[in-house]
Amino acid sequence: MILMGHGAGGRLSHQLVEEHFLPRFGSSALSELMDAGVVGELALTTDAFVVTPRVFPGGCLGRLAAAGTINDLCMVGAVPVGLSAAFILEEGFSLEELDLHVQALADCAAEAGVPVVAGDTKVVPRGAADGLFITTSGVGRLEGGFRPSPRLVRPGDAVIVSGTLGDHGMAVMALREGLALGGGELRSDVAPLAGLVRALRGAGLEVHAMRDPTRGGAAQSLLEIAGDAGVRITLDEAQIPVRGPVRAACEILGLDPLYVANEGKLLLILPAAQADEAVAVLRDARYGQAAAVIGRVEEGRGVVLRTSLGTTRSLRMAAGELLPRIC
Amino acid sequence: MILMGHGAGGRLSHQLVEEHFLPRFGSSALSELMDAGVVGELALTTDAFVVTPRVFPGGCLGRLAAAGTINDLCMVGAVPVGLSAAFILEEGFSLEELDLHVQALADCAAEAGVPVVAGDTKVVPRGAADGLFITTSGVGRLEGGFRPSPRLVRPGDAVIVSGTLGDHGMAVMALREGLALGGGELRSDVAPLAGLVRALRGAGLEVHAMRDPTRGGAAQSLLEIAGDAGVRITLDEAQIPVRGPVRAACEILGLDPLYVANEGKLLLILPAAQADEAVAVLRDARYGQAAAVIGRVEEGRGVVLRTSLGTTRSLRMAAGELLPRIC
Repeated sequence: MILMGHGAGGRLSHQLVEEHFLPRFGSSALSELMDAGVVGELALTTDAFVVTPRVFPGGCLGRLAAAGTINDLCMVGAVPVGLSAAFILEEGFSLEELDLHVQALADCAAEAGVPVVAGDTKVVPRGAADGLFITTSGVGRLEGGFRPSPRLVRPGDAVIVSGTLGDHGMAVMALREGLALGGGELRSDVAPLAGLVRALRGAGLEVHAMRDPTRGGAAQSLLEIAGDAGVRITLDEAQIPVRGPVRAACEILGLDPLYVANEGKLLLILPAAQADEAVAVLRDARYGQAAAVIGRVEEGRGVVLRTSLGTTRSLRMAAGELLPRIC
Repeated sequence: MILMGHGAGGRLSHQLVEEHFLPRFGSSALSELMDAGVVGELALTTDAFVVTPRVFPGGCLGRLAAAGTINDLCMVGAVPVGLSAAFILEEGFSLEELDLHVQALADCAAEAGVPVVAGDTKVVPRGAADGLFITTSGVGRLEGGFRPSPRLVRPGDAVIVSGTLGDHGMAVMALREGLALGGGELRSDVAPLAGLVRALRGAGLEVHAMRDPTRGGAAQSLLEIAGDAGVRITLDEAQIPVRGPVRAACEILGLDPLYVANEGKLLLILPAAQADEAVAVLRDARYGQAAAVIGRVEEGRGVVLRTSLGTTRSLRMAAGELLPRIC
């Protein structure tokens, strides 16, 4: 039976994909379980967006649907060339709210320079869907040998994040739980990362791996990279940028910002010798102002956090029931 | 407010797209309103599938989701190169039924020779979705100057259908309405059309337009083509292949098979001089055995049906509330 955790991006989600999808599809592109599948010099990706509430500080379902898919293409090194959007609408849904999401989706795609070239709408009766679900897909082109992959990650590499962690998840969570915390300071970071990646490419940096830490947060993404690369990633907690209101809200709810979803951040792994330049490039670009080196790659296994107190703890993959419908 | 008719493929659906989507996306590829958007030498398409019931004689949601997207690519002349599938699951959904749909999707894609290269799963709480929705997207390559488009349609062309009309819609409708009619003989035609199109291309036929008549049926597709091409299409009712049980069920429900959805048929328009060869090519291929010339293109406007009684009537675009959730 399907549980909420099957959709939360953690251990249960992986199990669902590995036991129920991969054996049937058997495509090598799919079995790499990357953000986007690669076929020839093309990348294809898809994501269903079911976030609730649909409008939140900093963004909305429509913006999320565009940014999420653009970012998935960017993370495998593809230059996005076109998006599609399929809308599942509940009978009685407000046309005004639909306009809001369509406009936000269009604006976000336009900001990233990606045309929306195909669409579909289906309507289901009242009660058969919760308002509006948007599934976006995108196609991108792999160019110039730029193909980040966890398999390129080596001991000696640096781990960089493009900005503060946990903003999207805590903005949605606070709204949902009615948390007064943070005033209006809890804002989603939802943004297209095409510009950041273009800047990194333009600087000629030797990017080994990139990931946008959405469901499951940075912990999940780094655990996947460490696992695929067969290395240990050690994070320095003091260096991880987290906004004050996010940290406070996390403490109240007993959450770790490393496990909270982001929608406008990227994790970057590249040779340590290029780390300072990469941080400078990110900081010069929109959405990268708070970029920082947060860790390093070593021989070993797993992801280890050195806390501000000097202790260490190993990060584990969440089962996944942390924050349902966060994207 | 969103009405069921907004999702049914008819007049209301067009209005929704033209008033709420196109002004915001403003992409020339999208504004052509074809089955797939074209960007450079690539075609991208997406469709959300919400059919109910999810399993029906002749197919299921999973098979429909693969065939529908493959067919959309084929109809614009693209050779499909990859598919993606996004699953929105309701908490508590049966894993056994999920397996059935995933397997059917995989089998249909494999039959058409198209790899599934990307996927996504989201889970929503009980009551927030009706079981399972699948959105498939596909990317294809435009090759060899094969670019059917209504703009190529000319007076003197022939109109061909690859087989019987109305099978999918009536199979689903009969099941939903509990019609005893047809006793098992009402079966969906859901099938990938990649083989048929490959055969047409292989024969070097000068295809002017192709369309798979899904929501809104053949009438809708031909009205769109006639409108885009600025021509009149005259159909000869006596030549339109419709199975006996489909005709009988349509009569009982007061439906016209020309307006009923198909999921494994194509309409083909090409010079009349090539019509016999095209029919022969289709009849030799899987899913094309009942191919027939059903009409011709003339100077004028609209779609006219010459009935078996010798009278004529103009076909009109349905508002769209005919058969909700047929695909």
